[in-house]
Amino acid sequence: MKKIIFALFFMFSLANLFAQEALNDGSNIISPQINNDNSVTFRLYAPDTKEVKIISDCVKGKAVDMQKNESGIWSYTTPPLSSDLYSYAFSIDGVRCLDPSNVYINRDVATTSNIFIINGGKGNLYSVNKVPHGTITKRWYASPRNEVTPRRITIYTPLGYEIGKDEYPVLYLLHGMGGDEDAWITLGRTVQIIDNLIAQGKAKPMIIVMPNGNVVQEAAPGESWLGFEKPNFNLPHSMDGKMEETFPDIIQFVENNYRVKRNKSNRAIAGLSMGGFHSLHISRYYPNTFDYIGLFSPAIYPRQNTSPVYKDIDETLLKQKNNKYKLYWIGIGKTDFLYKDVENYRKKLDNLDMKYTYYESEGGHTWSNWREYLSIFLPLLFQ
Amino acid sequence: MKKIIFALFFMFSLANLFAQEALNDGSNIISPQINNDNSVTFRLYAPDTKEVKIISDCVKGKAVDMQKNESGIWSYTTPPLSSDLYSYAFSIDGVRCLDPSNVYINRDVATTSNIFIINGGKGNLYSVNKVPHGTITKRWYASPRNEVTPRRITIYTPLGYEIGKDEYPVLYLLHGMGGDEDAWITLGRTVQIIDNLIAQGKAKPMIIVMPNGNVVQEAAPGESWLGFEKPNFNLPHSMDGKMEETFPDIIQFVENNYRVKRNKSNRAIAGLSMGGFHSLHISRYYPNTFDYIGLFSPAIYPRQNTSPVYKDIDETLLKQKNNKYKLYWIGIGKTDFLYKDVENYRKKLDNLDMKYTYYESEGGHTWSNWREYLSIFLPLLFQ
Repeated sequence: MKKIIFALFFMFSLANLFAQEALNDGSNIISPQINNDNSVTFRLYAPDTKEVKIISDCVKGKAVDMQKNESGIWSYTTPPLSSDLYSYAFSIDGVRCLDPSNVYINRDVATTSNIFIINGGKGNLYSVNKVPHGTITKRWYASPRNEVTPRRITIYTPLGYEIGKDEYPVLYLLHGMGGDEDAWITLGRTVQIIDNLIAQGKAKPMIIVMPNGNVVQEAAPGESWLGFEKPNFNLPHSMDGKMEETFPDIIQFVENNYRVKRNKSNRAIAGLSMGGFHSLHISRYYPNTFDYIGLFSPAIYPRQNTSPVYKDIDETLLKQKNNKYKLYWIGIGKTDFLYKDVENYRKKLDNLDMKYTYYESEGGHTWSNWREYLSIFLPLLFQ
Repeated sequence: MKKIIFALFFMFSLANLFAQEALNDGSNIISPQINNDNSVTFRLYAPDTKEVKIISDCVKGKAVDMQKNESGIWSYTTPPLSSDLYSYAFSIDGVRCLDPSNVYINRDVATTSNIFIINGGKGNLYSVNKVPHGTITKRWYASPRNEVTPRRITIYTPLGYEIGKDEYPVLYLLHGMGGDEDAWITLGRTVQIIDNLIAQGKAKPMIIVMPNGNVVQEAAPGESWLGFEKPNFNLPHSMDGKMEETFPDIIQFVENNYRVKRNKSNRAIAGLSMGGFHSLHISRYYPNTFDYIGLFSPAIYPRQNTSPVYKDIDETLLKQKNNKYKLYWIGIGKTDFLYKDVENYRKKLDNLDMKYTYYESEGGHTWSNWREYLSIFLPLLFQ
């Protein structure tokens, strides 16, 4: 009895902020509920609301009307969904509102969304499973080539790194515009993907280094002295060669501080969108450094007329080709707005007789694609 | 021009999920806005909503009405606030809704809230400042004494740990009921507090170890194979001695894997609420292990009649006393529902002639108090 009273007291204490006004009694609501056929039911207790919609990539980005029952609970059930990680929010009388029944949230630039996973296919790779887990480290490194220093970086080390003596290969994994050193582990589910692939024997144990690719930003929003600023999508100097010029600081930090194999055949670089742009240029700026290059929906030509980054592009690509590499992987979705640019870049590579592996998926410029590309790319590395 | 087009394309792409329906044009709204006098203005664009309230510890937990202007923007300005970290959410026609203009969110058990910081006083300690930053590591350790193993743990190491040769003292910092190995670094702002105190010369460089104190839970919600389950407040076996019995696994893991000083005068243990209960009992179970003990709003007597943890409490406290310790620190708020229990425990300590340092604050069972207690406690350690 005392036990129960104590638990009640505790809950009362937590709830006391909100005790004066009973805001809703929807606390027992389950949302999202994943049904046996992989359809999903969303629910919201909102008896006094005129209109509730669900906005989600699981309903193809449309805002879909939810229906209210006599208890004031709005609900909507999707058709059966394919296995993936999905995002959603409610629209309550036109206001974007996170699901109060779901604490799992991702931030994409300045927008937050609830998330859920449908298992049974690629969603399994994005889930935490009963497999050995690697370590996530968030630390700061000095970047002498960049005036914005020290800088924050996220590093994945596989299980056993801390206690073993092996040296590991390294993947440098770069985010897109508006992203930061946290994006690949939150939106990208990188830790779950690599843990699962290593456990399945499909990927080599490796270190994954996720730097902040916005050269003017020392750390992710909220993690720097700028405080809780509204995240900014388009930061200066992100695609003008500065990231490429300062990148050796990251390699040096990693190779001086981690037990890694320090040669080309044990270095990979990949990135999405702006990070694909960075991976393309960094790998040819330092054309004898990486044996594995991954361009995920890369932003190839956005600033061709203004950015000094393109200087000597053909010559350096040829150098990269002559130095040889093991994998040059390009992935893009059929409806990506960068599709045409990637097609033109492939023509350039063809003309230079540079070999590449090309993967074309459905869909566009989405994290759903980037998680899939990473899942395909990782098993190809360091073989 | 191409630059602008590219940026627009990119934004369009990000926005395309929501393009079919213009949900709101409130994207330029600033909320929360911290004014010069430390009042705060909250804003929400919601022209079609009947009623919007703000719920926050900055308005003493009341749900306060916001006012709508002719543009459909609801707003409310607080009185000037004292320096602290505050939480809030909106109530939109009775539905708890996070602020769509603020991406900074904390989870407390199963409730999410937006956060902001008022600087100028203790809030400065909770902010990221231009000071040297330590490293956060999230990894897994084996706990042979617990059937739920491996288990996830969060570890703070001060700047220089990785490259130096010094051995460091260790604080074991324990969360409360409903918390987990992430609670002290998210809600508790531990990393910012210790980084700032070390930079100010007020705390010794130390390692802070934040384990998961729910013995049946391998990791924080969302970080285990249980997936995106609704967080559970009251887990079994949390206050029955099991945490105390298995705690040596944590010390052994830390002392076998980190460069730490392995003696009593370099070990501290502290915790809030249930974590205060754990710290009390662990420190007397192993009565020659910790020189520094911190009980923050400790839950001392919740299960006195049912839990085997209390066996031999007086004898072991006396042993602890005879073995000597340097600091036994107790903090509690005047309106905490555990105030009376703590008063009784102080009487017990007085009767046993055990010395302690007592700190009584305003307020109750809140993270605002626990951040303050940590800020006071850390400078007292390892002196």
